[in-house]
Amino acid sequence: MKFERISNNPIIRISDVTPSAEGMEIIGVFNCGVAKYEGKTLLLLRVAERAISDEHFARVPMYDIEQGKMVIREFDKRDTTIDFSDVRFVKTPKQLYLTSISHLRLATSEDGVHFDIAKKPFLAPDCEHEEFGVEDPRITQMGEWYYINYSAISRMGVVTCLAKTKDFVSTEKLGIIFLADNKDVAIFPEKIGGKYWALHRPVSAYFNKPEMWISSSDDMLAYSNHRCLCKLRDGKFDSARLGASCVPFLTEKGWLEIYHGCDQKDKYCLGALLLDKDDPTKVLARSEKPIVEAEADYEKNGFMPEVIFSCGALVDGDTVSIYYGACDECVCLGRLSVQDIFKELGV
Amino acid sequence: MKFERISNNPIIRISDVTPSAEGMEIIGVFNCGVAKYEGKTLLLLRVAERAISDEHFARVPMYDIEQGKMVIREFDKRDTTIDFSDVRFVKTPKQLYLTSISHLRLATSEDGVHFDIAKKPFLAPDCEHEEFGVEDPRITQMGEWYYINYSAISRMGVVTCLAKTKDFVSTEKLGIIFLADNKDVAIFPEKIGGKYWALHRPVSAYFNKPEMWISSSDDMLAYSNHRCLCKLRDGKFDSARLGASCVPFLTEKGWLEIYHGCDQKDKYCLGALLLDKDDPTKVLARSEKPIVEAEADYEKNGFMPEVIFSCGALVDGDTVSIYYGACDECVCLGRLSVQDIFKELGV
Repeated sequence: MKFERISNNPIIRISDVTPSAEGMEIIGVFNCGVAKYEGKTLLLLRVAERAISDEHFARVPMYDIEQGKMVIREFDKRDTTIDFSDVRFVKTPKQLYLTSISHLRLATSEDGVHFDIAKKPFLAPDCEHEEFGVEDPRITQMGEWYYINYSAISRMGVVTCLAKTKDFVSTEKLGIIFLADNKDVAIFPEKIGGKYWALHRPVSAYFNKPEMWISSSDDMLAYSNHRCLCKLRDGKFDSARLGASCVPFLTEKGWLEIYHGCDQKDKYCLGALLLDKDDPTKVLARSEKPIVEAEADYEKNGFMPEVIFSCGALVDGDTVSIYYGACDECVCLGRLSVQDIFKELGV
Repeated sequence: MKFERISNNPIIRISDVTPSAEGMEIIGVFNCGVAKYEGKTLLLLRVAERAISDEHFARVPMYDIEQGKMVIREFDKRDTTIDFSDVRFVKTPKQLYLTSISHLRLATSEDGVHFDIAKKPFLAPDCEHEEFGVEDPRITQMGEWYYINYSAISRMGVVTCLAKTKDFVSTEKLGIIFLADNKDVAIFPEKIGGKYWALHRPVSAYFNKPEMWISSSDDMLAYSNHRCLCKLRDGKFDSARLGASCVPFLTEKGWLEIYHGCDQKDKYCLGALLLDKDDPTKVLARSEKPIVEAEADYEKNGFMPEVIFSCGALVDGDTVSIYYGACDECVCLGRLSVQDIFKELGV
């Protein structure tokens, strides 16, 4: 399977992004949604930041509901009742906190490769269910509206929210569409059989099988007709966790979904799934092997090694341009051929 | 707070119930939905059974999707790769199994106290998301239809499903209404502001705050407008877990919800919540102390000690007859006064 990485990868690096506020530092710019708008390529970047800490205090950035703004909470590292052992978390006896927080940032390009990155957040936490950040956007265009779904993290769990914009200037948040814990949502770009459809990934605390589900909706907000679409496979690249990555796109053979799968060693790859054109609950084919896996140095070494994760692709004829996060650290671009994917799928 | 337990509690015991099949034994008959139908009181009992095991084999009853029937899987107790340490579970390296399985059984009464218990299940596992059982039904009457929601357990997690019946003979299953993990669903018995409303309880694997949420629906199947309604309270009876118990009922002061709360010691009590008549997302009052807690011997000692759990109540004038499971083992009946609940709520 030929995956053509462009030569100037990573196309967006940590050093390219300005922190959103004083006292903060960027630790990653990665999983991004993508859209075409007025002839330009827009990326909606997940920007992860942390508060600058020191040897005495761990500092946790979060949106404070009562104060109605971002705050930085300090935790004394000498406090033995608090668990600081995992750098990603501060665990008090009563509450889990995240040491970093993400917002969504817009980047604009004429050629799809060189991007101007906005200095300020496009979509940032501003309510209770977003207090620990907003992550991993997918953009679905329907006519003149662009629907953005994203994971929202809070002490209530990981939920998926929806927002919409017509101009990538003003945005309306439409609230929670999938309850805790549910992420990796990708909404199909047109109605099928009179319904909207979404791929999503509920997770059970008890049974812990993160798999891909599909549901339909009349209004894109309330979903029913829930069913499990794509299960974990022992011994394969998607043996431990899987979920939708890109927004599905229609081909002559059906809906093509580029999804992510992860194995027991936390190696994240991309796979392909072909769904029936008129009934997306029918899986026509699924790749046995990854269609993209970590090979380049910037994919194999970084904050989370061997992680390839995409939230969006652009399709032009036979070419699929996949924007992806490498190692939860930077944004890269690579290209696949639709016909090659079909071959891999045996269709 | 006066809670009048009837003298012949428990009204339904393990010994009153016939196993659903040979090789099975009843281990509990408890959390039951309740309805009035043709002048009679109907209970929909949760009946928990296990396969009779011996010293060599643990036997796990489950619905097998491929065979389309209930089967009993055997696990060799000498297999050191399998964890048998918790009697409720069999944990293989790949999968968690439950050692018991529940179905729903109908019980009928002329006086609401003495019940005839059906010999066969009324609603039993028969599909993939029910493979480990169906539990904790709530019955909401709307006109001539009775809507039954219940937890369904499978390796995909704990989801809530809906079914409906007009005659308590034939039942139509309507599928999943809340995705994993979500239980303790109670659907309001009439539309409010043109919408159906449900209380429910999503649980996050990461943050583990089981709290009560509320959502609305146009068709009772697809929900949106999700919001957290009732949170955990430190140091109170509902400090660790809480969720809806009975189907809410309308009083002159608003919707009254009898809910359950659990503390760090796994003591389950009942509390009361008063919601605005026209906007059930508004909490008008909430009990500071339990309105029912374990006192009787059959509530304090049993399979799960100090557990009082209700899935349904009948209201007649000022009297609320609460059918409840005690110690996850037997069914009991007690009565509260609506005016007493108001006093407790300070309204």
